[in-house]
Amino acid sequence: MDSHERYFDRDLNELKKKLIHMATTAETMIDCAIQELTDRDQTVAEGIPGHEQELNRLQIVIDEMVQTLIATHQPVAGDLRFLLAATRINSELERIGDLVINITEAASAVVRQPEIKPLIDIPHMAELASKMVRDSLQAFIEGNALLAQTVIVTDDKVDALKDQVIRELLTYMLADPKTIERALALILVSRHLERIADHATNIAEDVIYVVQGRDVRHPLTPRNGEGGKG
Amino acid sequence: MDSHERYFDRDLNELKKKLIHMATTAETMIDCAIQELTDRDQTVAEGIPGHEQELNRLQIVIDEMVQTLIATHQPVAGDLRFLLAATRINSELERIGDLVINITEAASAVVRQPEIKPLIDIPHMAELASKMVRDSLQAFIEGNALLAQTVIVTDDKVDALKDQVIRELLTYMLADPKTIERALALILVSRHLERIADHATNIAEDVIYVVQGRDVRHPLTPRNGEGGKG
Repeated sequence: MDSHERYFDRDLNELKKKLIHMATTAETMIDCAIQELTDRDQTVAEGIPGHEQELNRLQIVIDEMVQTLIATHQPVAGDLRFLLAATRINSELERIGDLVINITEAASAVVRQPEIKPLIDIPHMAELASKMVRDSLQAFIEGNALLAQTVIVTDDKVDALKDQVIRELLTYMLADPKTIERALALILVSRHLERIADHATNIAEDVIYVVQGRDVRHPLTPRNGEGGKG
Repeated sequence: MDSHERYFDRDLNELKKKLIHMATTAETMIDCAIQELTDRDQTVAEGIPGHEQELNRLQIVIDEMVQTLIATHQPVAGDLRFLLAATRINSELERIGDLVINITEAASAVVRQPEIKPLIDIPHMAELASKMVRDSLQAFIEGNALLAQTVIVTDDKVDALKDQVIRELLTYMLADPKTIERALALILVSRHLERIADHATNIAEDVIYVVQGRDVRHPLTPRNGEGGKG
């Protein structure tokens, strides 16, 4: 390995560490936001705005690192594909931070009023979404297409839970219009969690693209005139 | 200009054309989805799934073009920054297609039942969101930071309209629980439109980053220890 390669590997490792730090920060934010809801305690969410600022800062740092890495080392093939995915995945992680902020806004509205029911599906959704974020990033760093595939599969569970949450809350709203505002806020929380899971899924799809050198983001789309899944 | 630069410019123009085609397709999709709602006619939305497939196909083609352009021409500075933004913007446009599909699903539920009220704010939101998509892409292609800034400003209007839609529909739901399901579907439509506007805003922020060579995506975030806006 010549010194140029060594520098490239060193910089690439630094980039990976920063992306993992983003994912870990996003997970912490999700966990705190949901704890606010389950414990009905707003103080546990106090650190979230600071974490969101940290994600914003890291997004900028990482995009600059990707640009410098490409300009300095002129990577091709797999390395270039990895770096292009890094700039997209970076955006996904930053958006997750925005969604957690939205969750805390809806959560504040919920915890100020009496409880409609003990929450079960929403914390479960949050747990799955949080794990999807962690696994999708780990899959990216390790180049692990199988792990990425489990993330994509889990997304269906999150979607099903969201539908269940909406259906159940709808029955509360129909039975007692006084619950409508609180129920609507909880529906929003479930939708934000669903979107977080979508971002993790986007990351996982990009991982498979990078690892396998082919695009599975739209497996059923005919490509360049080729038909079907090929 | 040597032949290498000529090839680069030719390929870059091809890439720009494809991105504009994506944006135009996304606009058409938004317009059709909202026309389905306002005209209460499901046939106008029939072309939407085909358009969404086209966006999926273009996303793959564009990511491959970006990779080939970087590997072949090894651009630096502004050109590299533009190409890295192109791969991120490409993802934003593809997501807009997904959201329009979501709108048509909610719209089908709405038009199968009697009208709650004539729609005014939702079509207005759609018009603004559609224009934001068009303007953000034009700003990217032209390197027009001022136009990008107008997109970012318009996003506040879309957010305000969405809040207004939710408030108004909430009064219908409270007054007559039989409207809850339809009202909820319309609230979802307004949220999908808000997210489309968010994607256009993400594009616009990336444009300013590319044009001005500095990151305005988080203008209030202290960076590398520097304080404030600088």
